[in-house]
Amino acid sequence: LKAVLKLGGFAFPPGLSAKDLGPYVKIIRNFSKRNALTVVTGGGPTARTYIAAARELGATEAVCDRIGIEVSRLNAKLLCSGLGSAAVSDIPKDLEELVRCAASQRVVVTGGFQPGQSTNAVAALAAEAVQADIFVNATSVDGVYTSDPRKDPAAKKLDEVTPDEMARILSGEGFGAGEYALMDPLAVRIIKRSRIPVTITNGREPSNIDKALRGKRVGTRIVPLRR
Amino acid sequence: LKAVLKLGGFAFPPGLSAKDLGPYVKIIRNFSKRNALTVVTGGGPTARTYIAAARELGATEAVCDRIGIEVSRLNAKLLCSGLGSAAVSDIPKDLEELVRCAASQRVVVTGGFQPGQSTNAVAALAAEAVQADIFVNATSVDGVYTSDPRKDPAAKKLDEVTPDEMARILSGEGFGAGEYALMDPLAVRIIKRSRIPVTITNGREPSNIDKALRGKRVGTRIVPLRR
Amino acid sequence: LKAVLKLGGFAFPPGLSAKDLGPYVKIIRNFSKRNALTVVTGGGPTARTYIAAARELGATEAVCDRIGIEVSRLNAKLLCSGLGSAAVSDIPKDLEELVRCAASQRVVVTGGFQPGQSTNAVAALAAEAVQADIFVNATSVDGVYTSDPRKDPAAKKLDEVTPDEMARILSGEGFGAGEYALMDPLAVRIIKRSRIPVTITNGREPSNIDKALRGKRVGTRIVPLRR
Amino acid sequence: LKAVLKLGGFAFPPGLSAKDLGPYVKIIRNFSKRNALTVVTGGGPTARTYIAAARELGATEAVCDRIGIEVSRLNAKLLCSGLGSAAVSDIPKDLEELVRCAASQRVVVTGGFQPGQSTNAVAALAAEAVQADIFVNATSVDGVYTSDPRKDPAAKKLDEVTPDEMARILSGEGFGAGEYALMDPLAVRIIKRSRIPVTITNGREPSNIDKALRGKRVGTRIVPLRR
Amino acid sequence: LKAVLKLGGFAFPPGLSAKDLGPYVKIIRNFSKRNALTVVTGGGPTARTYIAAARELGATEAVCDRIGIEVSRLNAKLLCSGLGSAAVSDIPKDLEELVRCAASQRVVVTGGFQPGQSTNAVAALAAEAVQADIFVNATSVDGVYTSDPRKDPAAKKLDEVTPDEMARILSGEGFGAGEYALMDPLAVRIIKRSRIPVTITNGREPSNIDKALRGKRVGTRIVPLRR
Amino acid sequence: LKAVLKLGGFAFPPGLSAKDLGPYVKIIRNFSKRNALTVVTGGGPTARTYIAAARELGATEAVCDRIGIEVSRLNAKLLCSGLGSAAVSDIPKDLEELVRCAASQRVVVTGGFQPGQSTNAVAALAAEAVQADIFVNATSVDGVYTSDPRKDPAAKKLDEVTPDEMARILSGEGFGAGEYALMDPLAVRIIKRSRIPVTITNGREPSNIDKALRGKRVGTRIVPLRR
Repeated sequence: LKAVLKLGGFAFPPGLSAKDLGPYVKIIRNFSKRNALTVVTGGGPTARTYIAAARELGATEAVCDRIGIEVSRLNAKLLCSGLGSAAVSDIPKDLEELVRCAASQRVVVTGGFQPGQSTNAVAALAAEAVQADIFVNATSVDGVYTSDPRKDPAAKKLDEVTPDEMARILSGEGFGAGEYALMDPLAVRIIKRSRIPVTITNGREPSNIDKALRGKRVGTRIVPLRR
Repeated sequence: LKAVLKLGGFAFPPGLSAKDLGPYVKIIRNFSKRNALTVVTGGGPTARTYIAAARELGATEAVCDRIGIEVSRLNAKLLCSGLGSAAVSDIPKDLEELVRCAASQRVVVTGGFQPGQSTNAVAALAAEAVQADIFVNATSVDGVYTSDPRKDPAAKKLDEVTPDEMARILSGEGFGAGEYALMDPLAVRIIKRSRIPVTITNGREPSNIDKALRGKRVGTRIVPLRR
Repeated sequence: LKAVLKLGGFAFPPGLSAKDLGPYVKIIRNFSKRNALTVVTGGGPTARTYIAAARELGATEAVCDRIGIEVSRLNAKLLCSGLGSAAVSDIPKDLEELVRCAASQRVVVTGGFQPGQSTNAVAALAAEAVQADIFVNATSVDGVYTSDPRKDPAAKKLDEVTPDEMARILSGEGFGAGEYALMDPLAVRIIKRSRIPVTITNGREPSNIDKALRGKRVGTRIVPLRR
Repeated sequence: LKAVLKLGGFAFPPGLSAKDLGPYVKIIRNFSKRNALTVVTGGGPTARTYIAAARELGATEAVCDRIGIEVSRLNAKLLCSGLGSAAVSDIPKDLEELVRCAASQRVVVTGGFQPGQSTNAVAALAAEAVQADIFVNATSVDGVYTSDPRKDPAAKKLDEVTPDEMARILSGEGFGAGEYALMDPLAVRIIKRSRIPVTITNGREPSNIDKALRGKRVGTRIVPLRR
Repeated sequence: LKAVLKLGGFAFPPGLSAKDLGPYVKIIRNFSKRNALTVVTGGGPTARTYIAAARELGATEAVCDRIGIEVSRLNAKLLCSGLGSAAVSDIPKDLEELVRCAASQRVVVTGGFQPGQSTNAVAALAAEAVQADIFVNATSVDGVYTSDPRKDPAAKKLDEVTPDEMARILSGEGFGAGEYALMDPLAVRIIKRSRIPVTITNGREPSNIDKALRGKRVGTRIVPLRR
Repeated sequence: LKAVLKLGGFAFPPGLSAKDLGPYVKIIRNFSKRNALTVVTGGGPTARTYIAAARELGATEAVCDRIGIEVSRLNAKLLCSGLGSAAVSDIPKDLEELVRCAASQRVVVTGGFQPGQSTNAVAALAAEAVQADIFVNATSVDGVYTSDPRKDPAAKKLDEVTPDEMARILSGEGFGAGEYALMDPLAVRIIKRSRIPVTITNGREPSNIDKALRGKRVGTRIVPLRR
């Protein structure tokens, strides 16, 4: 099985310790024994802190994006450090490097690539490039809702969505550096054009990730067409 | 003045010769004497031919995108070859290289950067990163229409659009490698978030480019807010 | 068996499609199942078109060479896209990268390297560096003739030539960018100094390539010494 | 004047904002108007947090050092983002890149280089390589003491020390990743061999940095020989 | 077994020939059949000659160090050339490249990395990064003495030393480019912090290296603690 | 004036010192005050020693060439170290880097680029790429002779030769790594195709170089056509 896991920035809280990351390291190590795996890490709160400071210091949005990328790469390096020889030691900086690293059959851990792309888009591009059988997007929410559950008490979690439905739900969201949505439009388009099977799940509960990687139903699936 | 020019793939037809490119070279040379200029070239028909062949040979969309990028970079190198010492000799491969090259005060010519990004998005990112005063998108159409003028005889050309209107007009367009629209969603989002002043003009008439670079009204302007 | 195949630019005609390349892809895939293979692609008509435009725009011969190299690399990327995971995803940019890629045991596809070197020379350098057992030069002619068969009706095809004879036959040919001969002097010198076994064959008939790679007599052989 | 400023990790506290960095940005901008300046940033508390997590996850000290380097480079990028076009946009990754960037006459900001080297050593190497007239080490202490003032109430601050005295005072300090001393032995040796004029000052008071850069007496000077 | 061998510059005398290196090549080839091996080569007399010339021409110590690094890398390339396909063809330029190359299971040969680091320090860093079971430092002396045996007839060779004793013995040695001691302070600190098992042996007798790699007692061992 | 100087390996004898290089450093510094200059250094006796050892150890000719390139680059670094801030600190590794460095208006020093190319060819390529007004080839002989003056007492020095005559005189010379002739065929072809004005002079007398750079007649000129 070839899998891509997006591990959201929630896994890298301020003042993080080995306790925060340990459970993810264990799941990744286990899964990678028999499967090819690429992990893309988000930037999380540290990225938001640094980006806010940069923006206030007068940085362009392009530079703010770059700073967010650096934090996501730092998170990737930290996760990688816990995987030892199970992972490639390099953190790929673009899709070509990622494909090169993925040829080694060891876990590849990466962060963001380029300004204008969220780490969700990076994960979608990676899934397309390595022809992944499954792309698990581990976020801090339970799945895709009909509307924002924090604002709308009538919001309903969906078991399945198509990329087009996903795009409609997401339209209108912000796009400042570091504020990328659950799944940005670029990610949605990549998923659609290459019909990538995606599961969006709540990664705060690590076992969800393991389940989703192994094809179990947890959260919301993105399916090419509604049945 | 700092300007970014997207020169669409139409300027690089199959069997191209110096006659096709000469007028653009001249305009660029002239404009760059007093202004900082970054030019982003599209892939055009050659890109579409190579991409179609790759897709039929079984390539992933990510690889097809990469091939389109290589053609756009080849076009960039050709354009650059006509600019001599007025241009930086390198064709930047990502935004960081572009910013580095732009610091030289000579013309920078570049093509695509990464899979998932059209050359329009590259141009928008470049405009954001160098803090351009004007971004001219030289395409093969006269501007933005209310609907596709090739299909709808009632389509009306717009003098101004906001990024949000632009996004609405473009929604529903294709996204296969090499089929990127007039202005893809990523480009629109970058333009919106950094309030970049854009002119979309018909570059088949080279003088339009010169006019647009010098701030004259030709084609459609993208404005942060409707007046 | 370790082999190097130079696939001439004839295989990449203007308006190319998967039909043009399919037969070569098939032969390469088959041969590479049991053998190590490096393929070097030429630039062909697209290179000549771009070079002519550049030269007319005032580019130096060094830049013209560079543009030819970019086209040959584009052709390499296209061929590579048809080989999927049978090939290394990177297109090496110099001999060191090529040797590194070749260590992976998968097919390596490359184009030109540096101004002043034809892709024939690149193929000869590759054959020397990987210590190839056979170097097949697939061209658009049937082999080496005593003189140019297009001009001299008495020209006779040779079954074998030595590098020195080859050099004599080729002397007096042009050397503008993109006009490199069947086998340029640098290629001949490399072949001579490392006694590389070469077969020059007509690649327009794909089966010739398969035969030549498998050691059968098709076209002309370059042999260290005349028997 | 050519100067190198080491800005210790204290300037990048957890939850940092533009307020923390603003005063340093202002001093650097001002000083760089008439002088060549290289700034080396430390990793600080964020580095220590990430390193502790990595170590607990089983990383080697070499990888821990690498993670500290990444944080220091992130800090460099943030500081750089506040300097706009006054600074080179790239964060050099080794001494050769640093020297190349320094040739541009704009401010160069960098973090760590290689495992085994503290950012103090990087700053000393930078000062040697660019032949700096002054190397200001802005730390979180007031200068060099005869012994550790946190442990020994009789510790006395020194106005001047020689590199050899410095080495003696520092001997016996720890050397885990992220725990590098005020000035590590490598930094001291570089300072000694190239007789680099150093001022160690308390950077928590930003004006000290300005004074030290302008040659005023604040903190402790390292002088080749005791007068 | 994972081993790191530092092969001192003594193995690369002026006017060197295959006879000088042959015995080392043989030992390395043999040992690497069953073990992972990284070899770090010193610069030796050629480095000292070039550095002396550079210094007299006015070069900074940083540039002198760089020149010494280039010579050590040249020596690495030469040694590598004798190992054929048993070794990785690239000479890593930093620790990240070294770790990447070491993942290939073939011998990795490298020289110096960065100014300020001796090749002994590089070897210690390599041993730490690849988690070597043994680090053999093949020098031109028989081991560690209580004092300099060339100056002090009462000097006694030690069978074992701790890193701290080693540091004490070495203190006071020079540090100009190319004059690095038997084991510089950085190397000693790395060995200490990661408790790397080291044997210092006289490499002029090649069989000592083979013995030391295989865990036999030849020369002086550096042990974490005195027994 | 734009000039390219090839400084043959004779300037870097075994056991070299600042005395050997000083006169060349002085001439280069002086000339570069008002002119753009690229210097290409040969490998000389040190290259030949290392190559002979590598060949005897079983290296391919490609690797032998690579070793020769490394020595020529080491010589370039040494020469560069004497030029201080008058020269670009980087030693370009290929033609694209060279062109980039040459844009800085400071002296660029480089060695070899790629296997199969002598440093004479590199110098010719550099002269073509930077559109040099003069290419001075400083060798250890007085110029081009009708035949080898060491073997033929009737050999006559020529004041002028055409590239074709040069090619004829040189034909039959060896081509092992490190044994490249006065001017190899590739260099001759580049000179011919771009009509580069060349002076071949005896660089053992440093003043000849100064004269040749300033357009005076010393040695043999290569002229496009015989008058």
